[in-house]
Amino acid sequence: MTNIPQPIQPPERILMGPGPSQISPRVLAAHSAPTVGHLDPCFLQVMDEMQAMLRRVFCTENELTLAISGTGSSGMETCVVNLIEPGNKMVVCKNGVFGMRMADVAERVGADVLTIEKGFGEVFSTDEVADAIVKHQPKVVGIVHAETSTGVWQPLEEISQAVHDAGSLLLVDCVTSLGGVPVEVDAWQLDAVYSGTQKCLSCPPGLAPVTFSPRAVEAIDNRKSKVQSWYFDMTMVRNYWGGDRAYHHTAPINMNYALHEALRVVLEEGLEERFARHMLNHQALKAGLAALGIEYAVAEGQQLPMLNAVRIPENVDDASVRSQLLREFGIEIGAGLGPMKGRTWRIGLMGDTSRAKYVLLFLAALEKCLASQGAKLQPGASVAAANEIYAD
Amino acid sequence: MTNIPQPIQPPERILMGPGPSQISPRVLAAHSAPTVGHLDPCFLQVMDEMQAMLRRVFCTENELTLAISGTGSSGMETCVVNLIEPGNKMVVCKNGVFGMRMADVAERVGADVLTIEKGFGEVFSTDEVADAIVKHQPKVVGIVHAETSTGVWQPLEEISQAVHDAGSLLLVDCVTSLGGVPVEVDAWQLDAVYSGTQKCLSCPPGLAPVTFSPRAVEAIDNRKSKVQSWYFDMTMVRNYWGGDRAYHHTAPINMNYALHEALRVVLEEGLEERFARHMLNHQALKAGLAALGIEYAVAEGQQLPMLNAVRIPENVDDASVRSQLLREFGIEIGAGLGPMKGRTWRIGLMGDTSRAKYVLLFLAALEKCLASQGAKLQPGASVAAANEIYAD
Repeated sequence: MTNIPQPIQPPERILMGPGPSQISPRVLAAHSAPTVGHLDPCFLQVMDEMQAMLRRVFCTENELTLAISGTGSSGMETCVVNLIEPGNKMVVCKNGVFGMRMADVAERVGADVLTIEKGFGEVFSTDEVADAIVKHQPKVVGIVHAETSTGVWQPLEEISQAVHDAGSLLLVDCVTSLGGVPVEVDAWQLDAVYSGTQKCLSCPPGLAPVTFSPRAVEAIDNRKSKVQSWYFDMTMVRNYWGGDRAYHHTAPINMNYALHEALRVVLEEGLEERFARHMLNHQALKAGLAALGIEYAVAEGQQLPMLNAVRIPENVDDASVRSQLLREFGIEIGAGLGPMKGRTWRIGLMGDTSRAKYVLLFLAALEKCLASQGAKLQPGASVAAANEIYAD
Repeated sequence: MTNIPQPIQPPERILMGPGPSQISPRVLAAHSAPTVGHLDPCFLQVMDEMQAMLRRVFCTENELTLAISGTGSSGMETCVVNLIEPGNKMVVCKNGVFGMRMADVAERVGADVLTIEKGFGEVFSTDEVADAIVKHQPKVVGIVHAETSTGVWQPLEEISQAVHDAGSLLLVDCVTSLGGVPVEVDAWQLDAVYSGTQKCLSCPPGLAPVTFSPRAVEAIDNRKSKVQSWYFDMTMVRNYWGGDRAYHHTAPINMNYALHEALRVVLEEGLEERFARHMLNHQALKAGLAALGIEYAVAEGQQLPMLNAVRIPENVDDASVRSQLLREFGIEIGAGLGPMKGRTWRIGLMGDTSRAKYVLLFLAALEKCLASQGAKLQPGASVAAANEIYAD
């Protein structure tokens, strides 16, 4: 028994970063329910129910809707590797870290990638995407709905029309948006969509919900080559989730329990009510930050409610503030990513974190941290401004 | 609130199949500890401790030792995709479903694959592997230590010598062996090894422990092309687990908590004691099965203690017996895979399942199920035979 580490004793955090978000005790309890086999009748029922619930959250009737046994980025790789064969053309819209990642994934899979780029924190116009499609004639267009690195909210409906007018497929990253703002897979005709569990679904990280339209499934069925990844090969994964339950890999049983419960929580609240809650708390946070003189890194009207990327005030030390928030209040917020590193904070109000109690505590705590760096602030103004929003 | 499924209520099973195995309440409790961020100081400590414990379980000093964020098969894909570049030669030893899977994975990654084959349930001799190496001059040789589909226990030491004499790298599937029988990564000079959590480590499925020797790391560092899989790219994953903690993907926090606790359980028991326990319960099961007239599908001396593949007696209906065991006793055993489907059962005694209480209950339950199919058995002989082993 020499040198065996002590049992884990994680501190209680308030997770206001870019994910993971706060996890409901109901979800954690489901996580530790007794493990059963991956072909147990009980687990097969859990899978069926999860698929049905995921369809409701994705607003789709897509049959091929399930949870990939990996984190959100594995959902990205799953969508790309199933739709792309070496040499296929793909347009990737890059305006943040996750668009960059998608282009990297696509190149590794052997796609002929054309990237179109916007600055971090900007959205793509329909014309910009349409021009690239005309130029490249791609099989697939990839875009990020909610850029977790920048907090920008990309409109999709018009772009989807342009993509389909050209006969291309639309692949969308909804890791951060699903469960926090509308993701209308069928109405917007999205063809391959992936998400993660640890953002607005408020489940621990570890699974990637995905959904494929009938058009995407047809593209997969018409492949000339095997999917490059065995683990993410939907032509096999779907047989385990679908009718014949053919063994592919051993599903992460307890992770699926947790997602099952997290989806129940989402549907009990109702999607519309959940979206309204995310918007309200975002507005309260924003009013409070404005009273502290803190600006958003993204233009008005393009800001995600669940991922608030804000400029770090001048003369304020990034790391010191984040470290003080964690040490004194147990509050985690996110640092900037890529070119926004050191210049922005990312304040998450995702799923269970999107609550007035966390917004108000965070504003009060941030005021203290900024004051300890010498900032001249009107005491209490930030909390008062947020409370005005809640009072409306 | 219409049509929301009921909360999960998994039955209490006795998991005696090919995995998942029984999970200790300690491990389940750790699984549902409060989620923290993937860059939280607390979680970084959990990662460091896990790496240290994994090295002890793998019997290695390999720096590049960590848990991949996917199930055991993702560990297979990780090892192959990092060592192989398109066109590289690989020899894959196929004597069961997981050798077949490895060849499939290698072909998808673009390897020039030479497979050598043995019947299901047979082991490879050193000469057979050495001949293939001379013929193919591969960069990598892949082999399965514990074939979960057949219950065969492949000796590795001599083969490893032959592989290294030829300057090749040895890639080994230890999904089912790790924690149940010796896996001496350094002493046997294994270069890339993957395992799973849900077998003899008795943790829920969802992570894949892997370790890479300095030789393997050198091969990865000398790659001319990017690793085909972004998600499994060790050149990036190692930077998150290693010194600079560069964000790659959001780690499955709670799964890592569970594995941390499962590894503590393993080390508290001690590896030698754990192996001895697995062997004792295997011998008791075997004596009991012999008294029921049930034979192993694998030759004496090549049988894995944790995965007992046995021939289904004549005139006994496979599915009926498995279904009766599950219905009446909550006992799950595994069906045969591949050509062994319908002809064998796979009885797992992995990790926490390897206990006298489960062996004895299983034998008593199986006797009842066989009797209900009209088998003529000496009542109680099976349990008596097992108890004789325990009495020694």
